Amino acid sequence: MKLSNRILDMQESPVRKLVPIATKVKKQGKKVLHLNIGQPDIKTPDVFMDAINAYDTSIIKYSFSQGEPTLINAIRDYFKRDDILFDEDDVIITNGGSEALTFTAIATCNFGDEILIPEPFYTNYNGFTKAVDVKLVPITTKAEEGFHLPSKNEITKLITDKTRAIMFSNPGNPTGTVLSDAEMEMIKEIALENNLYIISDEVYRGIAFDGLNSRSMGELDGIDENLIIIESVSKKFSACGARIGSILSKNKQLMKNILKLAQARLCVATLEQVGAAALYQLVPSYLESVKDEYEKRRDIVYETLNHIPGVVCEKPTGAFYVVAKLPVDNAEAFVIWLLEEFDVDGETIMLAPAEGFYATEGLGVDEVRIAYVLNSADMQRAMAILKQGLIAYNK
Amino acid sequence: MKLSNRILDMQESPVRKLVPIATKVKKQGKKVLHLNIGQPDIKTPDVFMDAINAYDTSIIKYSFSQGEPTLINAIRDYFKRDDILFDEDDVIITNGGSEALTFTAIATCNFGDEILIPEPFYTNYNGFTKAVDVKLVPITTKAEEGFHLPSKNEITKLITDKTRAIMFSNPGNPTGTVLSDAEMEMIKEIALENNLYIISDEVYRGIAFDGLNSRSMGELDGIDENLIIIESVSKKFSACGARIGSILSKNKQLMKNILKLAQARLCVATLEQVGAAALYQLVPSYLESVKDEYEKRRDIVYETLNHIPGVVCEKPTGAFYVVAKLPVDNAEAFVIWLLEEFDVDGETIMLAPAEGFYATEGLGVDEVRIAYVLNSADMQRAMAILKQGLIAYNK
Repeated sequence: MKLSNRILDMQESPVRKLVPIATKVKKQGKKVLHLNIGQPDIKTPDVFMDAINAYDTSIIKYSFSQGEPTLINAIRDYFKRDDILFDEDDVIITNGGSEALTFTAIATCNFGDEILIPEPFYTNYNGFTKAVDVKLVPITTKAEEGFHLPSKNEITKLITDKTRAIMFSNPGNPTGTVLSDAEMEMIKEIALENNLYIISDEVYRGIAFDGLNSRSMGELDGIDENLIIIESVSKKFSACGARIGSILSKNKQLMKNILKLAQARLCVATLEQVGAAALYQLVPSYLESVKDEYEKRRDIVYETLNHIPGVVCEKPTGAFYVVAKLPVDNAEAFVIWLLEEFDVDGETIMLAPAEGFYATEGLGVDEVRIAYVLNSADMQRAMAILKQGLIAYNK
Repeated sequence: MKLSNRILDMQESPVRKLVPIATKVKKQGKKVLHLNIGQPDIKTPDVFMDAINAYDTSIIKYSFSQGEPTLINAIRDYFKRDDILFDEDDVIITNGGSEALTFTAIATCNFGDEILIPEPFYTNYNGFTKAVDVKLVPITTKAEEGFHLPSKNEITKLITDKTRAIMFSNPGNPTGTVLSDAEMEMIKEIALENNLYIISDEVYRGIAFDGLNSRSMGELDGIDENLIIIESVSKKFSACGARIGSILSKNKQLMKNILKLAQARLCVATLEQVGAAALYQLVPSYLESVKDEYEKRRDIVYETLNHIPGVVCEKPTGAFYVVAKLPVDNAEAFVIWLLEEFDVDGETIMLAPAEGFYATEGLGVDEVRIAYVLNSADMQRAMAILKQGLIAYNK
């Protein structure tokens, strides 16, 4: 039986494809510290389960296709803190940020259309877009420049008559880079001058360090028709397994049409929406404390990386990732070696080779993404293992 | 800002588009009995919440992309009752049957490919397939014939070089028709002779009346490479809001590729999977009692319909729907009239106009789908309202 070309063309998740090797060595008794996926070890706030248990669960009924009103309103209130005012029909709840991105690609792009995106980028963007025949056109950014955007001219020369949007995550996964005010203004200009949608993935918003304010694109004026914000509870509230995301836009025509996609899949899990509403209602100081915790971990990671000869890495300012150039020829080979051949007192680390985060062939071969999702003590040990591993590997 | 053609081409859910009218009259104080959507009033078994509360919820973590092993094994055991043996990698958990259908369409069809489907059919099939550029080619079935399939010859002449699959729900939504053994064998023959996938939506399996055994296509030999089964807890376990579905197939290459789609969206909600595993582990007599309850309701509905002059409707044998031809010119106009202009002691009913369940223009205009999802007393009252409504409308 033949399979479709589009499914055969999809790449396997580069983050998940090394998992079988990790599983194997763990079975052999090795302990593996996972810095390869964005699964934080921070507790999900109790209000999540409290809200579910307080809900009438006698019949687990369909929710509304648009989403539970309590959750929609909790998200609106969350944006209101920054004076960003959304109407009720400006919000659609989705199965994680993943479905939000798929819906957005379908609604804005015809088959074969293009979306501009700074690379390295969140590797699953590839999966969503490939499945619906949308092409990602990379705007290359570099470790040496802290993965900040190139000039407006560099970006606009990538625009063709098929370009429909410019998409990015801010703070950035995998780079940990927070866009500057000037970069946000540049994106706005490019979008307005070229009639592009702005797809702003803000699932890490609020996790920004060194006193930086990671702003929402929603704070900018004059782009109501262009702007689509992607939200999720996964990272900010450490509830990855809840799969609650959302799409926000003041473009009424767009949202009315995306609702048709939402109706076709009926609704998002009802109980998880009830729990998520309670998360968005948490006092702002909760998110502040999460940010502080990640900042501490960032310092540990950056301090170590900065003292390893041959490593290239600007200090990341947000999210909980860093992409570092390592003094190795092939980062994937090194990651596999760390798993299979190396340990310190029976313990090793797993990193994500960064090549899969680039669309341009050949880039990122000597880079890894490190997710600092473990507590400080574990991160200290993990970074010591990386340092010793690099020395041993290069001998 | 332009929207994509594919989203503009999508139809609004015909089942949900009349909801604003119902909302309006309810605000005016009218009571509406909802026979328009498949949301049963049966309690979700307590084991669902019990399992979730017994689970470690301190961090709501990502599940596996393929799904929680306990749920996968519970589904395998559920099929084993009918001697249908699936390996662990033959099952992928999805966000409801909806995502299962979308993944299946993407994996089996290139852009512009075709899937054969008996009409009237579950209207959301349109949404899933339109979004991923797959064309549904209808095999027309008729109320007068109890919506059973036409001859093999009638079906095969619809096959083109773009046809990739034959898809159906059994027991059928919206028809309530259970496929006969001969029909199942015919589908098998057509698939084998024309190299088609068989997409068997079995989310209502087990809900079959009059001593009928609603078999799984998985019981048939020789179609391991062709067969894809769609499962869901929504209807059998009255857990529509859990959004837990699955794809089952012994075609290893297919499942390996569908897993890439599952990886791209990371996972399905973790807690809902834990609850769903407990549902599939319920003793078989639970499903037997659910079937008995729907059979009682079916009898009430059919008894009334059978005594209204001008109504055409064969006795449905499964699921919890019936499509009936009414003695009206336009069923949608009648449905709206029932909501806006009619009531019996302040109470009225909402039905689903059946036109949206047909792909062939002009069919189903005088038909409605009735979902018998309310308890016997409510169904009695609802059917009396329908009967009186028809008399009043035709005066």
